[in-house]
Amino acid sequence: MTEPENTLRYNDQDRDTVYRVMAERRDMRHFSGGQVDSATLKKLLAAAHLAPSVGFMQPWRFIRISKAELRESIYQLVQDERIKTAQALDEREDEFMRLKVEGVRDCAELLVVCLMDGREKHIFGRRTLPEMDLASASCAIQNLWLAARAEGLGMGWVSLFDPDSLQSLLNMPEGSRAIAVLCLGPVDEFYPRPMLETEQWAARKNIDELIMQDGWRD
Amino acid sequence: MTEPENTLRYNDQDRDTVYRVMAERRDMRHFSGGQVDSATLKKLLAAAHLAPSVGFMQPWRFIRISKAELRESIYQLVQDERIKTAQALDEREDEFMRLKVEGVRDCAELLVVCLMDGREKHIFGRRTLPEMDLASASCAIQNLWLAARAEGLGMGWVSLFDPDSLQSLLNMPEGSRAIAVLCLGPVDEFYPRPMLETEQWAARKNIDELIMQDGWRD
Repeated sequence: MTEPENTLRYNDQDRDTVYRVMAERRDMRHFSGGQVDSATLKKLLAAAHLAPSVGFMQPWRFIRISKAELRESIYQLVQDERIKTAQALDEREDEFMRLKVEGVRDCAELLVVCLMDGREKHIFGRRTLPEMDLASASCAIQNLWLAARAEGLGMGWVSLFDPDSLQSLLNMPEGSRAIAVLCLGPVDEFYPRPMLETEQWAARKNIDELIMQDGWRD
Repeated sequence: MTEPENTLRYNDQDRDTVYRVMAERRDMRHFSGGQVDSATLKKLLAAAHLAPSVGFMQPWRFIRISKAELRESIYQLVQDERIKTAQALDEREDEFMRLKVEGVRDCAELLVVCLMDGREKHIFGRRTLPEMDLASASCAIQNLWLAARAEGLGMGWVSLFDPDSLQSLLNMPEGSRAIAVLCLGPVDEFYPRPMLETEQWAARKNIDELIMQDGWRD
């Protein structure tokens, strides 16, 4: 007996597009200036807001950075952490310092993504896993990333910063937390492969090693 | 002066498809049994593995549950946490208990997603934000979710479980952590709106309230 046809399935071309955008999305650090028109930015943020969230809490908040001096302060925070990370990496310090790890000064748009304050009131799906708020916000960022790729815009998620300093710089309330500095904007090209793979920082893992059955495999 | 055409942008139809799959993806709890053929399951997991990851660490691990008794044990873990969550919700206890919050027994495929052990060695992008491993794995789950929607398959992310009990049930090593029980499979239909919105558990927030400029707005 054959299975009945799944009428909820997208047609071949549309399925290919969904897989294609995932394959072509890159964590970008090279940008070509320019700008993101406000209608497109709005569409990208609306795509983010379509993400799933634990108990429908929608914990994500976006701060668009428009002031040049604020962007520069964020750049300095990232530079500070870059040096501290390099030192913590010890034997890979020099190798790390040669990598381009952010595009804060070069990207058209800079967005800071935060988790809202008052999250402790949300218990649904978080009593034993409070970090599900971050999981939801990360799904929102992935939506934004994929939508940006379809719009021909690059995006990079920078997590090289001290969240307490960024919180204070942006007057964020107690209990909120900055989780991402997103660099967004036009690029000359998308890396053909993840930059950290090309630069041999780390290798792509074989997918078969990541899938186990009925329990952990050593 | 007009901006030069962005040749990296997808055509109208393909962009529409990317936005459409985000809009039509749902957190599903109603499944219609059946099965997911192994070629499709492999494509979905490959889509997950295309996600970005902090320092290219690829921290995600997937455990496919094939044994009926193991699925039943996971169901019991979820039921235990469902009761505890209901009690913790206090005045919303009855309302919560009326919601369908999981499809563990009814879905075609059950997957547990874990963060790998040994993550403390990965410092790049995690010195001040160690939770970026969860962020990466969440992006992988969002890819899986969107790809499943395109394949006409429903998916639900259940986080109602005690992670220590699940770790021990699946013989997961110290330092790893279960972050998701994913219910995946054929559905009769996709909810037209998020189920928790329809059931009036929470309302969709106005996107303009989520976007700020140059600092937090009260």
